[in-house]
Amino acid sequence: MTNRKAKGKLLIAQSGGPTAVINQSLVGAILAARTCTGAILGARHGFPGVISEDFIELDSQDNARLEAIAATPGAALGSVRKRPDAEECARAIEIFRKHDVRHFLYIGGDGSAKTAQLVDQAARQQNYALCVVHIPKTIDNDLAVTDYSPGFPSAARFVALAFMGDDKDNRALPGIKINVVMGHHAGFLTAAAALARQAADDGPHLIYLPERAFDIEKFQRDIRNVIERHGRCIIAAAEGIAEQAGKQLGLGHHQRDHGKIRKADMLGEALGELAAEACAGKMRVRVDTFGYLQRSFPSVVSAIDMRDARRVGEYAARHAADGGTSGAVAIRRLGSAPYSSECFITPLASVADSAIRMPDRHIAASGSDITQSWLDYVAPLVGDLPRMGRL
Amino acid sequence: MTNRKAKGKLLIAQSGGPTAVINQSLVGAILAARTCTGAILGARHGFPGVISEDFIELDSQDNARLEAIAATPGAALGSVRKRPDAEECARAIEIFRKHDVRHFLYIGGDGSAKTAQLVDQAARQQNYALCVVHIPKTIDNDLAVTDYSPGFPSAARFVALAFMGDDKDNRALPGIKINVVMGHHAGFLTAAAALARQAADDGPHLIYLPERAFDIEKFQRDIRNVIERHGRCIIAAAEGIAEQAGKQLGLGHHQRDHGKIRKADMLGEALGELAAEACAGKMRVRVDTFGYLQRSFPSVVSAIDMRDARRVGEYAARHAADGGTSGAVAIRRLGSAPYSSECFITPLASVADSAIRMPDRHIAASGSDITQSWLDYVAPLVGDLPRMGRL
Repeated sequence: MTNRKAKGKLLIAQSGGPTAVINQSLVGAILAARTCTGAILGARHGFPGVISEDFIELDSQDNARLEAIAATPGAALGSVRKRPDAEECARAIEIFRKHDVRHFLYIGGDGSAKTAQLVDQAARQQNYALCVVHIPKTIDNDLAVTDYSPGFPSAARFVALAFMGDDKDNRALPGIKINVVMGHHAGFLTAAAALARQAADDGPHLIYLPERAFDIEKFQRDIRNVIERHGRCIIAAAEGIAEQAGKQLGLGHHQRDHGKIRKADMLGEALGELAAEACAGKMRVRVDTFGYLQRSFPSVVSAIDMRDARRVGEYAARHAADGGTSGAVAIRRLGSAPYSSECFITPLASVADSAIRMPDRHIAASGSDITQSWLDYVAPLVGDLPRMGRL
Repeated sequence: MTNRKAKGKLLIAQSGGPTAVINQSLVGAILAARTCTGAILGARHGFPGVISEDFIELDSQDNARLEAIAATPGAALGSVRKRPDAEECARAIEIFRKHDVRHFLYIGGDGSAKTAQLVDQAARQQNYALCVVHIPKTIDNDLAVTDYSPGFPSAARFVALAFMGDDKDNRALPGIKINVVMGHHAGFLTAAAALARQAADDGPHLIYLPERAFDIEKFQRDIRNVIERHGRCIIAAAEGIAEQAGKQLGLGHHQRDHGKIRKADMLGEALGELAAEACAGKMRVRVDTFGYLQRSFPSVVSAIDMRDARRVGEYAARHAADGGTSGAVAIRRLGSAPYSSECFITPLASVADSAIRMPDRHIAASGSDITQSWLDYVAPLVGDLPRMGRL
């Protein structure tokens, strides 16, 4: 690491759904950048904040405040869900030129990596020397190349703990319980529910992922089998099933007037109806949709996630300051017991708009459970979980 | 405390909705009873387990296992929601006589206190010497006499943390967010959301309790006012509003075929529609129903709650063994900074079927917020919360 400060300013922004640790990446980048770049700016609410020059000066924030922010869920700079077009990217370069921004760090998922790629292309087209670095973040864990996406392990920890407690609740008052977990296209977060199992008869007993076709008859047969074995049934269902099997589940009929009902809620209702039918109305059926709590619950954080989210931010800032070329930060796993990793740079194109899904090896042949390889992968990321006691 | 062991066996059971700390009371009672009574039995799934003599022997459970159970949410003996009739209570006394049960501890809410009272009356009618002790438990905090109900502070902690994180999520991606919190008749748990506020503009910005009439026009006006001030709006709504204002909200129209949709979910939908209308569809409206996570989330526990839940169990067992008369254990607050308390016995009749509601002094004149007296009451119970950082 050179002591000579890199030329120009560094601009950082956050994008997409917040997580429990995205601010670790922000603070990691700020603190690292202070040692090796010129002034540090933050853009409010992602790319639109760049275009509107809604900047906040980050050099002078005191360290205690930054550490408090790092430990706070959400996205301290504000976030956004909109993707810029080519014209807006060209406009961003003009703004960078005006403010002498030479390093642009964008924290987000694969859509944000696409934005980073477009900005990088616009800079080349305008012959403007700019290093664009994508910093990975998403509770969905669907980023390509990286071992995992920071934000996922903490959300996975929330899901695992929720299922552990729910299993004990359901043991006390037995019935069918369906929990709908975030994840439109990838089942990673839903599959993390399996970490709740400590005894052979612990829930979740059934796990439905968007990676497998949803079959109503199999779903009801699965439930009857579990009830026969355990006298109760806890189910983890990815909200992505609503998209994949929405028509089949008749979700269209549930659309309300204002059109604001989440597909995840409609899915929960539909699955609840199927479950009630499967047991001929003889069991108590309850449905919970975990909702936004999964990605923003203070104090439920994976230690690995917290550490690595900080590191990817630091790595991005140092890479930019060292005169590195544009790219995306990724994590390479070096060991699992304990989990150890290193950061590296992968081309923006390898991550941009390249959301992945659960690999087949992690999904059981039944299509309604996970495999040991999934547990081997995810357990070290989530960290130790409390041991549940029973009589 | 006498060293002479009390005559007869002690039977313990759990009832009603599980909590994060109800097993502390169970384990507290078992460990205390070991020093002062004869054999200790547990009845599975509450009163029906008494009638069916579904007993589990609790003397020989090893301490490490008991401590693991104490730290586990749920109800380790199993729970029940059914209330016995006079005939079943008379039958219970026959069973107690057969097994020489002379102490009956029943952990639960005000309905369980009623059951305890009926059993006590049946014993008197049959001239059977029996000490019945009710051990308080409910996340609703609606038990009479006691300063608070064990189980409530931990659930309140979950709600406060959830709102803290949700506030940061909503700051990052601004909009209207409605969270439906458990509590059919009393607003205590919903009001605990106010503990999430650390800065003047933190959510929840509006709090609707079942203790106040729900007014659609006021609700929409309240939302518009908050949006004008903060550009976003976070709302805490007690599920009890569904019962209190269900007709007015047209919840009947949302009843689905299988009749399993929770009123809380229907309420969330209805409030979401009203919110969308209030802002003329110009803001993102999202609704979460916290559901069962509130009462059974491992690792989110109030230290005071954990300690006192243990103590009320211990106190009940010692009171019974010391030849005390039937009654309900209650908590008397001695100080708030730090929280200190002592246990005492109150007549079963003072607690049985006597659910209380939020006192007026805790509810703001606006009807959509709480007062400082509520915060003074609840903050020491919930304990220190993490400080949120912001730029």
